[in-house]
Amino acid sequence: MNIIEIIEKKKNKEILTNEEIEYVIENFLNGNIKDYQMSSLLMAICINGMEKDEIFNLTKAMLDSGDKIDLSEIKGTKVDKHSSGGIGDKTTLVLLPIVASLGVNVAKMSGRGLGFTGGTIDKLESIDGFEVEKSREDFLKQVEEIGIALVSQSGNLVPADKKIYALRDVSGTVESTALIASSIMSKKLASGADAIVLDVKVGKGALMKNVESARKLGKTMKEIGEAFGKKMSIFLTNMEEPLGYAVGNGLEVKEAIDTLKGNGPKDLEYLCFKLASQMVSFGLSIPVEEAEEKVKEVLKNGKAYQKFEEWITYQGGDINKIEISSNYQEIRSSKEGFITNIDALKIGYLVKDLGAGRNKKEDEIDYGVGVVIHKKVGEYIKQGESLLTIYYNKEYKEEDFINCFIISDKQKEKNKLIYEIM
Amino acid sequence: MNIIEIIEKKKNKEILTNEEIEYVIENFLNGNIKDYQMSSLLMAICINGMEKDEIFNLTKAMLDSGDKIDLSEIKGTKVDKHSSGGIGDKTTLVLLPIVASLGVNVAKMSGRGLGFTGGTIDKLESIDGFEVEKSREDFLKQVEEIGIALVSQSGNLVPADKKIYALRDVSGTVESTALIASSIMSKKLASGADAIVLDVKVGKGALMKNVESARKLGKTMKEIGEAFGKKMSIFLTNMEEPLGYAVGNGLEVKEAIDTLKGNGPKDLEYLCFKLASQMVSFGLSIPVEEAEEKVKEVLKNGKAYQKFEEWITYQGGDINKIEISSNYQEIRSSKEGFITNIDALKIGYLVKDLGAGRNKKEDEIDYGVGVVIHKKVGEYIKQGESLLTIYYNKEYKEEDFINCFIISDKQKEKNKLIYEIM
Repeated sequence: MNIIEIIEKKKNKEILTNEEIEYVIENFLNGNIKDYQMSSLLMAICINGMEKDEIFNLTKAMLDSGDKIDLSEIKGTKVDKHSSGGIGDKTTLVLLPIVASLGVNVAKMSGRGLGFTGGTIDKLESIDGFEVEKSREDFLKQVEEIGIALVSQSGNLVPADKKIYALRDVSGTVESTALIASSIMSKKLASGADAIVLDVKVGKGALMKNVESARKLGKTMKEIGEAFGKKMSIFLTNMEEPLGYAVGNGLEVKEAIDTLKGNGPKDLEYLCFKLASQMVSFGLSIPVEEAEEKVKEVLKNGKAYQKFEEWITYQGGDINKIEISSNYQEIRSSKEGFITNIDALKIGYLVKDLGAGRNKKEDEIDYGVGVVIHKKVGEYIKQGESLLTIYYNKEYKEEDFINCFIISDKQKEKNKLIYEIM
Repeated sequence: MNIIEIIEKKKNKEILTNEEIEYVIENFLNGNIKDYQMSSLLMAICINGMEKDEIFNLTKAMLDSGDKIDLSEIKGTKVDKHSSGGIGDKTTLVLLPIVASLGVNVAKMSGRGLGFTGGTIDKLESIDGFEVEKSREDFLKQVEEIGIALVSQSGNLVPADKKIYALRDVSGTVESTALIASSIMSKKLASGADAIVLDVKVGKGALMKNVESARKLGKTMKEIGEAFGKKMSIFLTNMEEPLGYAVGNGLEVKEAIDTLKGNGPKDLEYLCFKLASQMVSFGLSIPVEEAEEKVKEVLKNGKAYQKFEEWITYQGGDINKIEISSNYQEIRSSKEGFITNIDALKIGYLVKDLGAGRNKKEDEIDYGVGVVIHKKVGEYIKQGESLLTIYYNKEYKEEDFINCFIISDKQKEKNKLIYEIM
């Protein structure tokens, strides 16, 4: 087999065999296939696409490139959830204790992410004392005792994805259903869950710019997961404005707690309710409607929040000590009118610049910084009324944040939150 | 400007601006754009193509990346000729003295090529004493005195093409009208000629596999050349079997001499006659029909051959000492029948393996080796009759050469030599 011939096949819109795909992954990882050959092939895939079988084989080859997490010792259906990257998305922090409080075991190993804010594990580290490193033994023991654990990943999961993603990022080959689907699904399949709920974000602030392309991606991922024997549910949700009010690690943990206590932002609360119900439905093998009733109950009677507290305490965290910067400034609106747009992507970049996210793996995160917005799209703001609060530890430009908001005379309908559940 | 955005534009089938194309060439040459980014862009160009303006701008940016040969001191119309790579193609050696003997000045600076046999300059070096290095002054003086000179190129012509071609070769991005046209035309435009005759080879042994794709390439190159104010003529010619009988440097020089003396293979003789007439037509600004009469005359009265002798002698060569290996073996046919196919590409590789061509720039050429075939497609061969003669200085496998020929009971029409003149 020969990489030039494989590249030319995909260039000519032919279908790659499983052997060819395995050859590519193996030889790219060991360095026989060079970056400039792989990026040429990736571009051919971006433009000419891949058939269902090819995407399945690509996902499998990537999955098999590294370690897999084995959760077979934990009883019951293991449910995992993944979001394709949103600004202010702290749903995982709310979902896991809800689901665990209903008797569905939650055993999650997470990697540290690059992005606008940290990954879930970074957010949890904004809680004083919270321990993310556990031996496999202690991890399993914790799940057995309290039904919930989230620890940092050990082992080398899907190294092919890490190497390919790094190349896609710098070669203009990010947007591709085949490449995105195989990247997400290989990681999810390596995480050891039996059922997977995926939240595909749609909008200017997300990888998927419109519902149509998100639907195609969702359908593809659902098919891959089901081919691997997993229960799959795909949500297509809005990412035109940030989810909830808070963006930034400590601020998001606080908002997650508010939501578990019933005082969260309406959009976040609703999305968590729907996602949690789907997870519970999978975990307990009951209809979604029945699961929804159960979720409502544990939110109302405080059991979901209790589970959160139990979890954080078990992993050494002090729930009363969440890092939030003492330097903050409230920004008031100089205009009056309806909020018609909040640029989620821009806010993401600005919050990262405040120190809440990483550019490189080695970067340290400032857990205490971020923003809390006070108005959502569709709401009315008076002159002098509070628009957002910035929590900071270094300099920033006020106008940059103000420019994320568009205020207009004409009212705009509230954004639809969930476009579709597949 | 940003390379990722440029790559994504071409990925989305958008048209690149002149500024973007200039940015790419400049920054790829200085190393700011990495190989893995360039190969991704090249693949997007291969698949999504380029508009006429884009190809023109790409050619111009490549042309401007290095030195240009200035022939303005030489009087009259300077005519250049280029072939897109054929097996046994020694036409240049025949054409230049024909054209020069009719008063059209021929001033050619050539690079050493990679390929099945050497470039024209390598072929000439199989003549004992032939000097290819000349100062610019001596080069111009020679053209003034005898109307013909071919010397080795000095200066750094089209460095962008060298760097891009090396990458295309290893990233599966060779086949592309836009990339082939800009590569050939940037080099031809840098060579300083006023009129350009291009011989685009078509067939299994050539880059262009069929007449349709060759026509598209030819049309594109003609348009580019004319946009730069050049007179252009494009020949689409057959490369299913080798041109003439001889393949190998010294052997090809001998065959070129035979042809100038009126004893050449019919196909080579005919193609040279047509190409030379076109060059003379451009050079003297006369109709092709009139040029044809003149070419016939100089071939008949020996003036073309005299010019060849004068030229070789002027550059120090001894026309009676052409390097041809004294080790040769005649291969006789074990079968009887019609020759229906001679695999030009395979013969090219085999002759290169004998030592007649280069794999790397630094490789030394064995000028004396090669093959002379004795039958062409359409001819009949008896059992025991001579099929070809192999001139060698190292071991080879007889069957490899025999396998290049298909002998069949059914007669096949002779291959058409010139498909089209554009």
